[in-house]
Amino acid sequence: MLSGDMAKPLLTCQNADGDLSSPASVGTAIGILGSGDFARSLATRLVDSGFKVIVGSRNPKRSMNLFPSSAEVMPQSDAVKKAEVIFVAVFRDHYTTLCELTDLLVGKILVDVSNNTEINHHKESNAEYLASLFPQCTIVKGFNVISAWTLQCGPRDGNKQVLISCDKQEAKAAVGAIARTMGFVPVDMGSLCAAREIENVPLRLLPFWRIPFLLALSLFICFYIYNFIRSVLHPFLMEHKNKFYKIPIELVNVTLPCVAYVMLSLVYLPGVLAAFFQLYYGTKYRRFPDWLDQWLQHRKQIGLVSFFCAAMHAVYSLCLPMRRSSRYLLLNDAFKQITAGKDNAWVDEEVWRMEVYVSFGIIALGLLSLLAVTSLPSIGNALNWREFSFIQSKLGFAALLVSTLHTLTFGWRRAFDGTQYKFYLPPTYTLTLLVPCAIILAKVVLFMPCVSRKLLRIRRGWEKGKCAQFTLSNARNPSYEYSHGEGTSIV
Amino acid sequence: MLSGDMAKPLLTCQNADGDLSSPASVGTAIGILGSGDFARSLATRLVDSGFKVIVGSRNPKRSMNLFPSSAEVMPQSDAVKKAEVIFVAVFRDHYTTLCELTDLLVGKILVDVSNNTEINHHKESNAEYLASLFPQCTIVKGFNVISAWTLQCGPRDGNKQVLISCDKQEAKAAVGAIARTMGFVPVDMGSLCAAREIENVPLRLLPFWRIPFLLALSLFICFYIYNFIRSVLHPFLMEHKNKFYKIPIELVNVTLPCVAYVMLSLVYLPGVLAAFFQLYYGTKYRRFPDWLDQWLQHRKQIGLVSFFCAAMHAVYSLCLPMRRSSRYLLLNDAFKQITAGKDNAWVDEEVWRMEVYVSFGIIALGLLSLLAVTSLPSIGNALNWREFSFIQSKLGFAALLVSTLHTLTFGWRRAFDGTQYKFYLPPTYTLTLLVPCAIILAKVVLFMPCVSRKLLRIRRGWEKGKCAQFTLSNARNPSYEYSHGEGTSIV
Amino acid sequence: MLSGDMAKPLLTCQNADGDLSSPASVGTAIGILGSGDFARSLATRLVDSGFKVIVGSRNPKRSMNLFPSSAEVMPQSDAVKKAEVIFVAVFRDHYTTLCELTDLLVGKILVDVSNNTEINHHKESNAEYLASLFPQCTIVKGFNVISAWTLQCGPRDGNKQVLISCDKQEAKAAVGAIARTMGFVPVDMGSLCAAREIENVPLRLLPFWRIPFLLALSLFICFYIYNFIRSVLHPFLMEHKNKFYKIPIELVNVTLPCVAYVMLSLVYLPGVLAAFFQLYYGTKYRRFPDWLDQWLQHRKQIGLVSFFCAAMHAVYSLCLPMRRSSRYLLLNDAFKQITAGKDNAWVDEEVWRMEVYVSFGIIALGLLSLLAVTSLPSIGNALNWREFSFIQSKLGFAALLVSTLHTLTFGWRRAFDGTQYKFYLPPTYTLTLLVPCAIILAKVVLFMPCVSRKLLRIRRGWEKGKCAQFTLSNARNPSYEYSHGEGTSIV
Repeated sequence: MLSGDMAKPLLTCQNADGDLSSPASVGTAIGILGSGDFARSLATRLVDSGFKVIVGSRNPKRSMNLFPSSAEVMPQSDAVKKAEVIFVAVFRDHYTTLCELTDLLVGKILVDVSNNTEINHHKESNAEYLASLFPQCTIVKGFNVISAWTLQCGPRDGNKQVLISCDKQEAKAAVGAIARTMGFVPVDMGSLCAAREIENVPLRLLPFWRIPFLLALSLFICFYIYNFIRSVLHPFLMEHKNKFYKIPIELVNVTLPCVAYVMLSLVYLPGVLAAFFQLYYGTKYRRFPDWLDQWLQHRKQIGLVSFFCAAMHAVYSLCLPMRRSSRYLLLNDAFKQITAGKDNAWVDEEVWRMEVYVSFGIIALGLLSLLAVTSLPSIGNALNWREFSFIQSKLGFAALLVSTLHTLTFGWRRAFDGTQYKFYLPPTYTLTLLVPCAIILAKVVLFMPCVSRKLLRIRRGWEKGKCAQFTLSNARNPSYEYSHGEGTSIV
Repeated sequence: MLSGDMAKPLLTCQNADGDLSSPASVGTAIGILGSGDFARSLATRLVDSGFKVIVGSRNPKRSMNLFPSSAEVMPQSDAVKKAEVIFVAVFRDHYTTLCELTDLLVGKILVDVSNNTEINHHKESNAEYLASLFPQCTIVKGFNVISAWTLQCGPRDGNKQVLISCDKQEAKAAVGAIARTMGFVPVDMGSLCAAREIENVPLRLLPFWRIPFLLALSLFICFYIYNFIRSVLHPFLMEHKNKFYKIPIELVNVTLPCVAYVMLSLVYLPGVLAAFFQLYYGTKYRRFPDWLDQWLQHRKQIGLVSFFCAAMHAVYSLCLPMRRSSRYLLLNDAFKQITAGKDNAWVDEEVWRMEVYVSFGIIALGLLSLLAVTSLPSIGNALNWREFSFIQSKLGFAALLVSTLHTLTFGWRRAFDGTQYKFYLPPTYTLTLLVPCAIILAKVVLFMPCVSRKLLRIRRGWEKGKCAQFTLSNARNPSYEYSHGEGTSIV
Repeated sequence: MLSGDMAKPLLTCQNADGDLSSPASVGTAIGILGSGDFARSLATRLVDSGFKVIVGSRNPKRSMNLFPSSAEVMPQSDAVKKAEVIFVAVFRDHYTTLCELTDLLVGKILVDVSNNTEINHHKESNAEYLASLFPQCTIVKGFNVISAWTLQCGPRDGNKQVLISCDKQEAKAAVGAIARTMGFVPVDMGSLCAAREIENVPLRLLPFWRIPFLLALSLFICFYIYNFIRSVLHPFLMEHKNKFYKIPIELVNVTLPCVAYVMLSLVYLPGVLAAFFQLYYGTKYRRFPDWLDQWLQHRKQIGLVSFFCAAMHAVYSLCLPMRRSSRYLLLNDAFKQITAGKDNAWVDEEVWRMEVYVSFGIIALGLLSLLAVTSLPSIGNALNWREFSFIQSKLGFAALLVSTLHTLTFGWRRAFDGTQYKFYLPPTYTLTLLVPCAIILAKVVLFMPCVSRKLLRIRRGWEKGKCAQFTLSNARNPSYEYSHGEGTSIV
């Protein structure tokens, strides 16, 4: 049994305040309006976290059985009187039904937990609409990113964030404390106008992946058609050879590395552009143009799509010798060799070319896998800034270099061979080399002492035409070249 | 030096209360009974977190050197007087030795940190046994899931959860606050009867993986025997051909995809059954039968085992052409072709069949790898519900579809070829097609407007024979079909 | 509107104290000295977290525009008067410029957020240097591991730790509370002398990977040269055969498995040594020699490097049949076979050898991938101790066993074939077998009942020559064999 003296401080210690009436205290009354799935799961979780839950229902008798037994279910007007913080678990369309409670709600904190069914469905966010209906209440947006399921199970994996926004710091802090007591991690998103963004969060469908995916898809289609014309259509029209069997595997396998290689170069291009931008304007404080900013922020995703294409290219390549077509061609070659009486098929140049380019390909894939693994949140978070930039920038650039060598040795002398220009179209690999070679050249320029020294000065805060400022920024302020994306980037 | 006015609030601010006697305050006295490894590590951690540690030992002089110097070691009877919260770091078998302290312990909070050596070793949990010995104390179960090693190092990765259960909210909150101050994440597991479950946690051996693993193993054995009879035994008995060399690789390679494919279909079967269950009873509030519930909760693991088998199948397949056997067969074919004077070995149908089924196989593997990657906790946690269900349900079903195409094109017309029915046994691939095709058919039925509309209504809370309820449940309440498992599921 | 009664407790509830003047309270004044990038980002984050920010600048007018509008910028002497906790965001070289504020700073908490540009650059840490300049202040080291970028964005992924050290618990707790309010996870690193270590954290470059990487590199070089002599140089000098085409792929492919296999055995060797050490001294409380301790702590990294080499070996092997050289050799073999009139190339022993060793290789790779996946922090953290040790110790040892079988069946009878001893050098695989076979033998010895029982007793706390102690250590105290590394280890 707890002694009387102990009871009080214990009662409050988890909730970080010295006043029992504060909403975060164990045993504090929390109101809920609504009786849907979310309301029920919320009530369960609040009860489990030690709060006293008061549910306001328009039909208390019917709702009674839906809620945990320790939650008190009563008419809405009674419920709102008993709690200072009230969760509004009602559809936006039914907010107006609460207007009869206006007088009782004065001064209360209303937590809007609602979601929409479409992104930017309404002109104003649900929370702002609620605020306009109840100007004398403090509206807090929050908990909408948590599912009823997570509420019911409890946040066992300890990673669930609750995005909260509110115009009043105190109310925000109060709801944040409730979230923390429930086991969630409150994240302050600023004032109530952020509610729009918060309401869009659960409706987002991989927003950062859209552009990289579409980019990869369009590159794939372009290169595929180009390769189809050169490898299938040209032999069919010119030499009446049926090479259509190449469509499912061989064409895909020459297209994938093009996509992977171009995408990989697009990961490093914006960094180079940003460096030249900074050199040109002589400052790091000038904002990049929006397209460059967007590009810098998508580098991780572009890099991972590039890795996926490279890995698929590896699998396709490894499948080549197991196919029937490869077997039949080999048998036919054996037949030809024997009928020709040639006892040695060996072509030294061909052997060396293939040994070398396959070798570079494997090394590039190995480097890209390391980059991909360090892009995993749980690994990236364990790296400090220096390690992260070493891996993503140094190793990543090494991967680009080795990929370039892979492409060059694969191409060998074909670019200078007139017969390779089917329909006057140059071999595909020559097209893909353009951007990467430009980047490598630019990196060489940026690496020259005179340029690199100036860039370093700019990134340490030096500005053209201003006197030197000694500010504590080096070593910790990620230079814009590498850090503009999220913390865990493939670049 | 801290000014006097500052000192007090600072002293308490991390511990969220305004009373210095509260257990979570820096400087508060915490008692420990016992002097084993765990007691020592606990003392070290408590001292490092700013608590005053008082160790009760039956032989204080001998124990003195084992504990950090700032911990006070004294006889048990003295120690228990000085602290309100006391960790009992003693074996269950020695609980009775504490009975002499009964009077001194009245009203104290005792934290039972003990573990058992076997699951459900004793009839009642250690904590409940302790509670029965000291009815006038408040018993809290906790910290048993933390190892002495983690205690000593401190929870650097910030992920370590402390499961806590207790019948009194205040005591639970107090111990939770201590855990939080020590850097752990307290998780409320409810009342003391949960101690049994908590004590079993450190003894569990991958409980969620047992059924999927055994399922995969038995499927593997059945299919392996079936394939052995068809591919090795039949040629040996009927044609006196020695194909036993197929045992280590080829037989495994035809068995693995069967297991992977059937397991993948078993991931989607329970969702379909659940949908029909809900349609039949016209409500989502009726509990599923236990077997279905269990099945729904194991989908992630079943899916990952399926992916592992599929990946192994890919590696085995890629190894095929490098083997001696493949080389010898090719050489023999070349010999036959030349002695027959056939200048072209090409069989167009065979070429197309293989190009197409290998291609589908690679695509299916690519889709499954995406699913497997998003099953990683650190990635799954970063997805919102819509993204998660898009990947696991839409992409996962696409993987099932492509796998079905892979199987169909692999099988081609063999199902209709009488010579393939060795010992009247149909080709293996026809057997594996049964469940997946049933699921695809059922999905088509569920996708029909009339059915899907009714299902949607049910999942939004509509019930047969009841008037419509407008509850805030859509968009956030994961429908039962997809969410009944944990948050990070492969389905 | 908040009622007056509600306002006060709400105001404080997130900050866990009952006094508004406490630094962690929303609205509390926090001082910042400096106006660089870090100071600005810090100010932004503090303002966003609800603190009142007072910036002390030597040129307030110029600095004004650099800070968020709600931060007050004023002369340094005014600023330090208004805050109890002051962040010193100034370079170490400029600490002395603050000496003019000495009188005003008496009793304040100064947070040193500085970093160095090199590891152990100065004899004493920046924080200790600051402490020597301001003996009447309390110096707290912290926030240096956070980048300006993370400060600006806010710790969205919820994983960012702030390492804090200070000689006074109260000041540490105060700064810890500020960090927590800002959304970071404060980690107590002990007294101020830990500042040196904390200042080195952002400068570290994968310290745990250096030794394993160098080890793998030197093993690779040695084995590569050895294989080069045996497979390329010997045929060239003795038989005048040009095998130089083997350099890029085939030689790498025979070298990688040697590195992988030896590294894998080095993961298990220290555990065996530790067991014999404990058996020899008859106690687990005697410290291991430093080299063994270091080795035990690097096992995870050694294991992952081993896995990387094994995976690369798999990719190289799978590439073998697609190469031109393999094609040409096959065509030449076909030519020879036909001119010799041999209708069957089949060699049963060769077929079986290859089927079996490839099969073991795939299984070993599968086991190693499982180990690698469970080494991911987000997965390792979800396992309890028993599961972790089952996977890393049991499955890992199984992988070592299967790798040994892979090596033995690959080698077959070549070790006993005199012609294989080129330049009297034994086949490479015989060299790699030494350590693993020794480990397997040692494990067999340790598994014998008499030895294993003694070892178990020692690991439960029994000591040679002392009476039995019954301490609560089993099942939770990871025995030194397996746990001495971090929680998430491949072993």
